[in-house]
Amino acid sequence: MSDPNIIPQRHRIERKDRRNLTGNDSFVLWFTGLSGSGKSTLANLLEQKLHERGVLTYLLDGDNVRAGLNKDLGFGDNDRIENIRRLGEVCKLFLDAGVVVLTAFISPFRSDRETVRNLVGNENFHEVYVKCPLDLCESRDVKGLYSKARAGQIPNFTGIDSPYEEPLTAELVINTSVSNVDESVAALEEYVSSLLRRK
Amino acid sequence: MSDPNIIPQRHRIERKDRRNLTGNDSFVLWFTGLSGSGKSTLANLLEQKLHERGVLTYLLDGDNVRAGLNKDLGFGDNDRIENIRRLGEVCKLFLDAGVVVLTAFISPFRSDRETVRNLVGNENFHEVYVKCPLDLCESRDVKGLYSKARAGQIPNFTGIDSPYEEPLTAELVINTSVSNVDESVAALEEYVSSLLRRK
Repeated sequence: MSDPNIIPQRHRIERKDRRNLTGNDSFVLWFTGLSGSGKSTLANLLEQKLHERGVLTYLLDGDNVRAGLNKDLGFGDNDRIENIRRLGEVCKLFLDAGVVVLTAFISPFRSDRETVRNLVGNENFHEVYVKCPLDLCESRDVKGLYSKARAGQIPNFTGIDSPYEEPLTAELVINTSVSNVDESVAALEEYVSSLLRRK
Repeated sequence: MSDPNIIPQRHRIERKDRRNLTGNDSFVLWFTGLSGSGKSTLANLLEQKLHERGVLTYLLDGDNVRAGLNKDLGFGDNDRIENIRRLGEVCKLFLDAGVVVLTAFISPFRSDRETVRNLVGNENFHEVYVKCPLDLCESRDVKGLYSKARAGQIPNFTGIDSPYEEPLTAELVINTSVSNVDESVAALEEYVSSLLRRK
């Protein structure tokens, strides 16, 4: 190029352009709740429903984040904060890209969830509290983590020796001790449908 | 839910599902080259072309990565390696999400670029070497960085007091001292078209 400063058209493709392309808004559905509450199950099933409707989605969870981007992080306080910070930044990139993001992390602390809310923008952040009493989560113990935690093998386990701070203003609460899976997914779909209509 | 272990359909939406949704493969176009070679300009213009063709893209560059996800990192050796590692992991997430990723970073070291290639998979990684002699890049000095580097104000500046390791096996080489912007973008479009046809 003879003069690189002469650029024909320097319009950077932005979030609104990509939203026009996909035909829907992008936003973050942040699932929070105790281990065993049903976060991953519900996020997964909702993603399937959205995919069937032609919505481009991405699910961030321990499987693809803790083993990759955040594999250098442990579970101490500083690392936990950094874990959520990076998650928030990645959510922001996906929002920009026009992708509907679902996240499934215990994310026990209000301050961390607020950090992400502020980072991605309140209007893009939808906190889904997957509510379930500790004793029921513990009785399910799908991954056998509670029994390990009770045996002292997992320190700082949420609900056992580390607190879970319930959301005070979640956009949606799904009580999985009351609703079955189908009912829960239906409630999620209804909520998300109202977001998708926004153009 | 009475028994959370009974899950109606536990099919996780995967990369191939999202590629079916978007109608094209996802891949990484990794632009590398000296500061001032034209990486960002070309990546930006290519993104516009792809967007016009209905391809969902995302451009990762200093603007959205260094100020966000990697804002805790400096330019020392360890931080530089961590910078590229995180970039690679984010590329992988976007690949999974079905998005065509363009990156525009000097990324001067072969080993770093190979790290990302191995991480995302050779078949998904397309190295675009934006080639331009140092003296021409320096004479352009669009951001005034070379004069600062020559004045000793920016240590470890690629091309001045830190090496740039030319790609040996780049998938595409764009020589911006020979081709003008239109020609360069046309070459990029032609290359990418062959990738998009793959279904």
